[in-house]
Amino acid sequence: MTYRAPLDDIVFALRLAAGEGAMEADGVYRDLADGVAEQTLAEAARFAEQVLLPLDTIGDRVGATYANGAVTTPPGWREAYAQWKEGGWNAIAAGEDYGGLDLPALLNAGCTEIWNAANMAFAVCPLLGHGAIEAMEAHASDALKEAYLRRIVSGEWTATMNLTEPGAGSDLGLMRTRAERADDGSYRLFGQKIFITYGEHDLAPNIVHLVLARLPDAPEGTRGISLFLAPKFLPDEAGGFTRRNDVRCAGIEHKLGIHGSPTCTMIYGDQGGAVAYLVGEENKGLACMFTMMNNARLSVGLQGVALAERATQMAIGYARERKQGRAPGAKETSAIIKHPDVARMLLTMASSTAAARAICYETAAAIDRAHRDSDPARAAAANERASLLTPVAKSFSTDVANETTSLAIQVFGGMGYIEETGVAQLMRDARICAIYEGTNGIQAIDLVTRKIRGGDGAALAREIDDMRAIAGEADVSREALHECVEALAQASAFLTKAELAGALAGATPYLRLFALARGATLLVKGATRAQREANPNAARYAELARFFAENIAIAAPGFAKSVIDGGASVNESHAALGE
Amino acid sequence: MTYRAPLDDIVFALRLAAGEGAMEADGVYRDLADGVAEQTLAEAARFAEQVLLPLDTIGDRVGATYANGAVTTPPGWREAYAQWKEGGWNAIAAGEDYGGLDLPALLNAGCTEIWNAANMAFAVCPLLGHGAIEAMEAHASDALKEAYLRRIVSGEWTATMNLTEPGAGSDLGLMRTRAERADDGSYRLFGQKIFITYGEHDLAPNIVHLVLARLPDAPEGTRGISLFLAPKFLPDEAGGFTRRNDVRCAGIEHKLGIHGSPTCTMIYGDQGGAVAYLVGEENKGLACMFTMMNNARLSVGLQGVALAERATQMAIGYARERKQGRAPGAKETSAIIKHPDVARMLLTMASSTAAARAICYETAAAIDRAHRDSDPARAAAANERASLLTPVAKSFSTDVANETTSLAIQVFGGMGYIEETGVAQLMRDARICAIYEGTNGIQAIDLVTRKIRGGDGAALAREIDDMRAIAGEADVSREALHECVEALAQASAFLTKAELAGALAGATPYLRLFALARGATLLVKGATRAQREANPNAARYAELARFFAENIAIAAPGFAKSVIDGGASVNESHAALGE
Repeated sequence: MTYRAPLDDIVFALRLAAGEGAMEADGVYRDLADGVAEQTLAEAARFAEQVLLPLDTIGDRVGATYANGAVTTPPGWREAYAQWKEGGWNAIAAGEDYGGLDLPALLNAGCTEIWNAANMAFAVCPLLGHGAIEAMEAHASDALKEAYLRRIVSGEWTATMNLTEPGAGSDLGLMRTRAERADDGSYRLFGQKIFITYGEHDLAPNIVHLVLARLPDAPEGTRGISLFLAPKFLPDEAGGFTRRNDVRCAGIEHKLGIHGSPTCTMIYGDQGGAVAYLVGEENKGLACMFTMMNNARLSVGLQGVALAERATQMAIGYARERKQGRAPGAKETSAIIKHPDVARMLLTMASSTAAARAICYETAAAIDRAHRDSDPARAAAANERASLLTPVAKSFSTDVANETTSLAIQVFGGMGYIEETGVAQLMRDARICAIYEGTNGIQAIDLVTRKIRGGDGAALAREIDDMRAIAGEADVSREALHECVEALAQASAFLTKAELAGALAGATPYLRLFALARGATLLVKGATRAQREANPNAARYAELARFFAENIAIAAPGFAKSVIDGGASVNESHAALGE
Repeated sequence: MTYRAPLDDIVFALRLAAGEGAMEADGVYRDLADGVAEQTLAEAARFAEQVLLPLDTIGDRVGATYANGAVTTPPGWREAYAQWKEGGWNAIAAGEDYGGLDLPALLNAGCTEIWNAANMAFAVCPLLGHGAIEAMEAHASDALKEAYLRRIVSGEWTATMNLTEPGAGSDLGLMRTRAERADDGSYRLFGQKIFITYGEHDLAPNIVHLVLARLPDAPEGTRGISLFLAPKFLPDEAGGFTRRNDVRCAGIEHKLGIHGSPTCTMIYGDQGGAVAYLVGEENKGLACMFTMMNNARLSVGLQGVALAERATQMAIGYARERKQGRAPGAKETSAIIKHPDVARMLLTMASSTAAARAICYETAAAIDRAHRDSDPARAAAANERASLLTPVAKSFSTDVANETTSLAIQVFGGMGYIEETGVAQLMRDARICAIYEGTNGIQAIDLVTRKIRGGDGAALAREIDDMRAIAGEADVSREALHECVEALAQASAFLTKAELAGALAGATPYLRLFALARGATLLVKGATRAQREANPNAARYAELARFFAENIAIAAPGFAKSVIDGGASVNESHAALGE
């Protein structure tokens, strides 16, 4: 057993984020009433543990393989994908118009965590596909939706996002893939895209590519990018999809992790042009992409939570079994979990994972409220909150995944360095999460420039007020919480008025500081509620909240100093950077 | 070019650690006068860059391979080892009696850093062999030295350390390998050892194993362990070494990194007993091992410095070339090094590497002074200092290696996740350093229990006084330095009087806190000296010292709080650990 879905913790975090009463018959989450959330999560857990988890190791060992333009997924993955599709999992969060169940982002978050913990290299396929679904729901024509979206929602076909090029990664404005208008109203694409997750594979008979490209008369930079749909197979006259489009996979990458997930180089149009259809308006492609960006970023944050959770479970399991040395006061050799230094590592892992989960689910709930709340003002505030929290959820959770999977190796000691044990794979798999869907640095810059400096500051003020309220009522660790939240308030005040370069220099420590304050207060809020409700896990939640406040969030004043006083030493260092 | 030995920085750190005048004709390091240190390092760099570095990638890709008891090293490694031996590199730090050059630990530290940066999987073979040399120098009989040591020193044969067993890792007292006395005064060994680095290979015609085992009448635990020498080939009647001993390699591990280095399972005595000779006295084996432990731990710290340096160089190189986005004030697309957030990552890497290097070289200098200083009191104090600094040098440097190699991947973005780029290998290789030769947690416990609580506190008091003096004279970052050093003093005072479990719970944050204070003050000391001497790198050193003080060492008060106030939340958490 290397992973068991922590249903108790997920349901608890989910209910905490939803807010009290939200899952009752008259609440925002009325569709989750009567145990729907719990039942769905339990089913998702069964599927993850029984179908996805056993394929995780072989996915790593064998990996996806490439030959002559075709990609073969690891043994067993085709069968698992068929079960995924049959089980209807692909459709849960998609809109109802094209076959989705329209379940809330919050429930989808729980499922996403579980699937990715069991087998991230598999789960990343539908995860990114969900982004394509959202982009199409919002921007595609009815004809495109009818022809493609229904089959993507059902999982019959998969979908990809094609953004990155060799010269255009974080800066999409440098993109060079070219689109030409055809006489029939369609377009032809020419160019190369790299790092395309599941750009080619054998899980489904057709693959629908959403591709960013530039029209010949487009403005320079990001205002000249359009979004296109280019399927692997085009419709034939009989209504089937048998005509091969001019798009091919030229190879897959040899990566540090997620070996089961093919990362493809895609070539468009070297046989005359890939047939493509416009999604949304010309030159508005980036806006279409941003539609789904918040959700995709949150999903990557959930991948972080997922791997952190699994690493924590594995480390605790090993530390209970492995006996070395005598713990203080012990008369015989102790399980290493009894050694305070090992306990510290495990508590760091468990509490950071819980904090990251709380932030992610809070973000999902804000996304839902933005869509579901009947009060427009509340919905608008929730939308601002989702924007504010999304970069934090993405970056902090994936940083925690890196730290936690590395700590798991440390707890395993020499055994952790051996691939057979499986924890090393978690570290390798996790490492991409801080990079893709916008690097964590990009997230921090987004947080500081758009979310803190860009708006009227109301969302931030509400967030800090909420943290202060929790800290003020806390039974334990009150001083640590207070110090942490006030450090955030000070750093926030500094950033709103700092000159741009100084603000940017503090972006990463600021994001971490934000996450510490938000994570610590959410854990305390949860612990208080668990105690009040006599939750059977109340003691555990209280311990994790206290440990996090007194050992992790304690770093907050240091990060605030780094934001406020440390930026100059970044921007005034030239010799050290060889300038 | 993925690595160029930073000779300027190494020589500077070496001279700083040696102390002013130490390398003159009348100083402690008189054998390094007249440019001997600089010349030796330049030669070591040439060998590393021209011979070892080109084999690093193939070592990772092909790895060491196992078949039928034999291990084949990657292509080109045999030739490189022959050059290593011919160049006399193996002998530089060994004593003169058996063919060594007896050069100081400080110079060996510089060379060790350079070799490991170029190819850690190769360099770990002589690195661990050096520990065997030291153990034999101190404890082996003259007959064993004559027969084996000379050939190990020259590099004709290699040597291994056999400590770990499946049930005995950090706790060597649980060891079960059995030794029996033979009639001729030799011994026979029976048992299994795991994780034996270069336990079998094709680089040299004989391999000399130093093996910890237990005699039938030995006391329980660590007081019943003896050290033996068991060569792969035993002497024959003609004086050759042709008789195969009863020791064999049963397999090698599939590891996260250092693939070129075979990690062997060794079976002793399944054909009647492996012939072995006692080293030192019966049941005093662990003491013999501890002889060489300080140096081996420092060497692993230097591996950390090495990989951190190489990762920093690669990241700075990439960040100068890669253009994405516009930096503040820029009119065109900028090299990413111009973005403050990227600059922060690079400065974190460069300054942490410099701090780790400074601490390691300071430790090496303390080891040298303990052996070389003509004043017995100064020598004794230096010995205490070496003991105090060694766990800090080992843990901090290897933590920095983990952090820095991971940051290098982050700077490379998606390209960093592709194995072809080479930075991912650095992260995988580095990950073992925090584990072997005593996990970093074991180091922290050693620091707190033996070095802080175990002695009279004089060495610690001298160290803190030295830090205070530097902080008090600092031109810049004085407040940050002061706060950092006083945080260390407070945490130290707490640890000396805390009950054991509470002290142990704070061991890891305390070690980090110690390293921050020591690292920050050494960087400032160096920057001041560089400015005074009009060193061409003075501006760079000043920037790194300032950045480290104002952005990294700033975490010190938080760590002190974690040590002083956070231990209770570790030791009082039971539910969270499933107890």
